[in-house]
Amino acid sequence: VSSRLPNVGTTIFTVMSRMAAEAGAINLSQGFPDFNAEPVLFERVSHWMREGYNQYPPMAGVTVLREAIAAKVANLYGTAYDPETEVTVVAGATQGLFTAVTALVHPGDEVIVFEPVYDAYAPAIELQGARVVRLALHSPDYRPDWAAVAAAITPRTRMIMINSPHNPTGSVWSAEDMSRLAELVRGTDIVIVSDEVYEHIVFDGRQHESCARHPALAERSVIVSGFGKTYHITGWKIGYVVAPAALMAEFRKVHQFNVFTVNTPMQYALADYMADASRHLGLAAFYQAKRDRFRAALADSRFELLPCSGTYFQLARYRAIRDESDTAFVEWLTRDKKVAAIPVSAFSAAAEDEGVVRFCFAKHDDTLDAACERLVAL
Amino acid sequence: VSSRLPNVGTTIFTVMSRMAAEAGAINLSQGFPDFNAEPVLFERVSHWMREGYNQYPPMAGVTVLREAIAAKVANLYGTAYDPETEVTVVAGATQGLFTAVTALVHPGDEVIVFEPVYDAYAPAIELQGARVVRLALHSPDYRPDWAAVAAAITPRTRMIMINSPHNPTGSVWSAEDMSRLAELVRGTDIVIVSDEVYEHIVFDGRQHESCARHPALAERSVIVSGFGKTYHITGWKIGYVVAPAALMAEFRKVHQFNVFTVNTPMQYALADYMADASRHLGLAAFYQAKRDRFRAALADSRFELLPCSGTYFQLARYRAIRDESDTAFVEWLTRDKKVAAIPVSAFSAAAEDEGVVRFCFAKHDDTLDAACERLVAL
Ligand SMILES: CSCCC(=O)C(=O)O
Ligand SMILES: CSCCC(=O)C(=O)O
Repeated sequence: VSSRLPNVGTTIFTVMSRMAAEAGAINLSQGFPDFNAEPVLFERVSHWMREGYNQYPPMAGVTVLREAIAAKVANLYGTAYDPETEVTVVAGATQGLFTAVTALVHPGDEVIVFEPVYDAYAPAIELQGARVVRLALHSPDYRPDWAAVAAAITPRTRMIMINSPHNPTGSVWSAEDMSRLAELVRGTDIVIVSDEVYEHIVFDGRQHESCARHPALAERSVIVSGFGKTYHITGWKIGYVVAPAALMAEFRKVHQFNVFTVNTPMQYALADYMADASRHLGLAAFYQAKRDRFRAALADSRFELLPCSGTYFQLARYRAIRDESDTAFVEWLTRDKKVAAIPVSAFSAAAEDEGVVRFCFAKHDDTLDAACERLVAL
Repeated sequence: VSSRLPNVGTTIFTVMSRMAAEAGAINLSQGFPDFNAEPVLFERVSHWMREGYNQYPPMAGVTVLREAIAAKVANLYGTAYDPETEVTVVAGATQGLFTAVTALVHPGDEVIVFEPVYDAYAPAIELQGARVVRLALHSPDYRPDWAAVAAAITPRTRMIMINSPHNPTGSVWSAEDMSRLAELVRGTDIVIVSDEVYEHIVFDGRQHESCARHPALAERSVIVSGFGKTYHITGWKIGYVVAPAALMAEFRKVHQFNVFTVNTPMQYALADYMADASRHLGLAAFYQAKRDRFRAALADSRFELLPCSGTYFQLARYRAIRDESDTAFVEWLTRDKKVAAIPVSAFSAAAEDEGVVRFCFAKHDDTLDAACERLVAL
């Protein structure tokens, strides 16, 4: 069988979660909580199943959920999307990203991404016969270098994929970053695909700079977000995409033949659940407390902690503990020391990203404390 | 925005279900039941949600469900698939088909499909920069013409997409058909993608000819099936794919970056539910009774009924009622006569497929009777 993705193996998240399970390690690798969502959400799913809402919903999602999404986005970020033509429910943010790339990138195009980059982006681009243009984000703060972005834009640049709050680095773009981006794309036909799944997890009083907050970007952006990280249901695989009608029309052409549509009873349940905005607005404080607890405990370790302004990930340099390759280190950490982490180099081809691991702190305080005890002992 | 699918509009299912809703018509267009699944299935979902099974499952699906799928396929069709490397749970059969095409078809390849053809196949092929080779199935029995298939195979033929029981025609391939196909692909590297979502809906004592029943095909086949049609949960969007490990490895490379994985609590619930095989084995008799009821009632109409050997679709010629285009007829039928149907020409570019509509009989007997009353009066 000749491969369309000859250089791709199994995603690092699968590899590490499997290794963690085999080793009986505390799993701080793949990004998901080890606590449950609220029972009231489950009750809503049960309700809609029993009521018979188990058949195909509309292709773009159930109307009440699309309306709830549009209302949230308008409230928080100020752009009004038409639920009928500009909001689509997707089978997780990854499917939204893959579909956006498939629908909007042509063979021969160039797509700019920022490295470290989430591992799903580049394969989606390569499958279209397009070229991935990687721009480095540099530690410790992983800010975009706008001069480098300007230099990378060519007449073939079709799309720029951005992600703030940023996985894996926990960096958060500023309003100034958004203005710089808007300036660079003005007058071009470059589309922005903005992965905002951590939109509700920003710390220290920062605000999330959604593309929907910046009209010059919103008019050319496909914004992808999800419910998994926000409502502690990463395994439900439901997200959403908002975009101006012309972009959304192209998105839906592919979406309808990729997954067609998304789980009916859970869409209705999420529409009910979203009505109480404190459920997403309270998330930042919830995770900030966990970040602070985790960082305070690791202050006594030999890890060097990098800044964390958002997401539920904390980066740490480990070379003071062991001077070895990332692969060797995470395997030792997982199998021998019983704490699993993700090497940042899994998101990057750049040598400068070696020596750093990512811990997920979306865990019970007890889990974090137990992990920190092991990490401090190294 | 320049389109990757310039000739594609909104899928016919969305168009017709929307028109049916607007008109207050009985909706026999899009294929889904108007009765509910069993409460015990919902109770299992509720159980797994409450127990905290709401985070990412393994990328290929939860182990117990993959094992249950492998056991079912081995029991019914005799091929043993390894749950670890040869079974993947997908977000509906459509996603399985789209992912298989993306993973296995290269730019410049040719893919053979049989027309009338389900509307998701051709766009998936075209997005890969490959060529769709359409072979006609002829009414009334819509059998494949094996001489035509032989003539259509070239060194560029990469894949043949098949679908039995066949949507929209209700035809079912025989063991002889499978042998002919096996003969034609022997010694080539052609992959078969076999859409078997109606595998449990075959009538009159026929058996379903899964590729998994025919070793010469199984070794080169990606078999796609689903739970929606079988358990009356089309809106849950959960299906599965089985294939030999080498093909599955390529499938998963794309799957992991498309949807990554599929709803956790519903996967566990389906594993529980599948344990009782009568739930899928009883389906043929259940739908055969509905087919017989529907056909008997329409015997008094001016529709000419075509044979129906499987699926929950009945084709009917309407030109004796009105001599007009399919579009005009289904619009009149839906808006004026309050029964919605799908024109078969939506699945076909061939003139010979004009004048035929598809009715879905996966409905309460009362619904079918009410629809037939209206159809007989035409
Ligand atoms: C798709 S599984 C990975 C979850 C996640 O977003 C992460 O761990 O970075
Ligand atoms: C994807 S919605 C269409 C359902 C179906 O399989 C059909 O009606 O043919």
